[in-house]
Amino acid sequence: MTLTAAVVAVGDELLLGDTVNTNASWLGGQLARVGVQVVASTMVGDDLPRMQVALRRALQDAEVVIVTGGLGPTSDDVTREAIAAVAGVELVRDAELVQELTDRFAAYGYAMPAQVLQQADVPVGGTALHNPVGSAPGLRLEVGERVVYALPGPPHELQAVIAVVLDELGARSGSVLRTHTVHTSGLGEPTVAELVEQAVAVPAGVALAYLAGGGAVRVRFTGTDDDVLRRLADEAAAVLGDHVWGRDGDRLDEVVHRALAARQATVAVAESLTGGLIGAALSRLPGSSSTFRGSAVVYATDLKETLAGVPGPLLAAAGAVSAETAGALAAGARERLGATYGIGATGVAGPSEQEGQPVGTVFLAVSGPSGAVVRTLRLPGDRDRVRALAVTMALDLLRRHLAAEPVVP
Amino acid sequence: MTLTAAVVAVGDELLLGDTVNTNASWLGGQLARVGVQVVASTMVGDDLPRMQVALRRALQDAEVVIVTGGLGPTSDDVTREAIAAVAGVELVRDAELVQELTDRFAAYGYAMPAQVLQQADVPVGGTALHNPVGSAPGLRLEVGERVVYALPGPPHELQAVIAVVLDELGARSGSVLRTHTVHTSGLGEPTVAELVEQAVAVPAGVALAYLAGGGAVRVRFTGTDDDVLRRLADEAAAVLGDHVWGRDGDRLDEVVHRALAARQATVAVAESLTGGLIGAALSRLPGSSSTFRGSAVVYATDLKETLAGVPGPLLAAAGAVSAETAGALAAGARERLGATYGIGATGVAGPSEQEGQPVGTVFLAVSGPSGAVVRTLRLPGDRDRVRALAVTMALDLLRRHLAAEPVVP
Repeated sequence: MTLTAAVVAVGDELLLGDTVNTNASWLGGQLARVGVQVVASTMVGDDLPRMQVALRRALQDAEVVIVTGGLGPTSDDVTREAIAAVAGVELVRDAELVQELTDRFAAYGYAMPAQVLQQADVPVGGTALHNPVGSAPGLRLEVGERVVYALPGPPHELQAVIAVVLDELGARSGSVLRTHTVHTSGLGEPTVAELVEQAVAVPAGVALAYLAGGGAVRVRFTGTDDDVLRRLADEAAAVLGDHVWGRDGDRLDEVVHRALAARQATVAVAESLTGGLIGAALSRLPGSSSTFRGSAVVYATDLKETLAGVPGPLLAAAGAVSAETAGALAAGARERLGATYGIGATGVAGPSEQEGQPVGTVFLAVSGPSGAVVRTLRLPGDRDRVRALAVTMALDLLRRHLAAEPVVP
Repeated sequence: MTLTAAVVAVGDELLLGDTVNTNASWLGGQLARVGVQVVASTMVGDDLPRMQVALRRALQDAEVVIVTGGLGPTSDDVTREAIAAVAGVELVRDAELVQELTDRFAAYGYAMPAQVLQQADVPVGGTALHNPVGSAPGLRLEVGERVVYALPGPPHELQAVIAVVLDELGARSGSVLRTHTVHTSGLGEPTVAELVEQAVAVPAGVALAYLAGGGAVRVRFTGTDDDVLRRLADEAAAVLGDHVWGRDGDRLDEVVHRALAARQATVAVAESLTGGLIGAALSRLPGSSSTFRGSAVVYATDLKETLAGVPGPLLAAAGAVSAETAGALAAGARERLGATYGIGATGVAGPSEQEGQPVGTVFLAVSGPSGAVVRTLRLPGDRDRVRALAVTMALDLLRRHLAAEPVVP
């Protein structure tokens, strides 16, 4: 990495905890990708003296300083003043920006408070960065050997303004970082690491990282040569076999949707502990109506029979939380909702146990034209976490079942 | 506020953007509540020199420094060293902590790598803070007139260790801050602000803030006199009337659950665009089985008829996305899933319009023993946001419908 950056996020709401600083983590990833290393990241309040201290420190720490927030139209918004003060220059009101602001308010039919015009102030020697989705332009100012970028705080505005900044920084750093990632499910992180490191020789200049969470373990190769990274990821995927569900930007629900679409197949769900979350995951994607039929959320025990078709005697004998009932839910979902495949899910989310089954006990089933599979899991965590993991595991079970069935062209 | 604090969060993954810094925002709220004002909050990598710079700056900025992360058992974990170096003291290995670590590993049946014992190192003059959920104890060290607390990075460990720290800081600051909050839905923020400020006289020493998001506008009073704050919140709630759905820590799904339970009533859902998210919200709470029966997620149009009982001719005439169909879904949910109340939801999540209806068009209905109500909404945002807002608005519609019906004791 040939360029260093320091990020300063401005806003009282960040320090009070009203807002989580998602901008900093998003920026960290974006900057890494264009070869810029973030060496420090700070939050400071809407306080002019403290902001100047933060800016001065940032200019000591790094070649590039990125400030987010404090560019709004109220008296709390002092980023422009702070930057000008630290750079030792005046702010000048730009006539073109004044016109844009005036036109913007006129288009809305709102009266424009005079204070809004502070958004047209630019430090002498600086340039404004166009903001297509908000009224506050960003700013760029060289301060000695260093450069300061001031960008809007609201995340969707930050993301709209930053492209030109990332292009400029990528050109300066001369080394754009690439990543290739392999997403797996079904193996613990130590096992994944062991398999990968036995099979893949990681050359100098490539960083290997494992990220575990949400029922997935991701293997990430980072470096500058895209072809080398792709080859390494291919090697890792080969040794991890059918535990691999995706690469790079893939999401599990997208992978499942594509696998169903390739088979011109549909899926329906009969779910209990997950309350509708499996259906929600299968309908997240635009166009999911071509593969997702619906879900019977049979939270009450009797509905497992009346809505999802679980035979009464089986429900009475095996109980609502059992492998047999999960299998019957999957079959019932297929039949009652008219789908190629059915997913069944029943279990104990907690905090109390149920039918003598401990918290985290989950039975998942997939039923399809060529047969059925049932899995028994013990999932960790509290109620929210057990439910979320059950969704991931249910989608992965369907993925694996589909992978075992050939695509008939 | 009589005490200032600076927060330093340690970890490369924070700067790379792999992890969002939720600890800092959580800490900000916790500290404000015990009368401590966070004046700066920084993220720094697992880098000893940079960490020392960050700590020195933090000690300049505030009377209390809280460091999270870097207390683990690997060579990346250098927080202890950094604190000792900045304080100018040695680290000493504590025999009791060594014993605890050894016992912990023995109980798991794992061999203990020698490096783990670094978690027993304490700076001379410092004390260890017991960690009931992880192996790394926290640390407390006075540095001149100031005090440094080092706490574990994983959020659930941080939250387990911090109680004793907050007690100590609350006692020092002598002014514990309280908040009383009123949660509303159905009015825009400017209207809420206008109503509140017309009706409520806010005394000196009380801060009034509005927080808008997720379909709710919250009115928050902050100060030191709990009775005064409660009275102000009562006054705000009175003027906001039935737009108020809760106070303080209430969550909308809990409010709905309690309202149903008070009436010994149940609810079922027939939902389309939300994919199961309404059912998921109504089943989030432990004990929701006493009020939530289930949901028919009728994503495919034909299932609205076959599963949820929408009459075929109505579906054909009015279309899947209509007020009439929403009403029929609510009635069908009541009947087919055997509940006191039914919720119906249909609409256009996007990105494409449907049946000539633009993205964000949502029809919600509630059906119950005393009648039914249907609402037509135009919700902003992308697919995910439209779905999420539809859930909030559906729960709020049920709440309002229940509030209009007396509780028969």
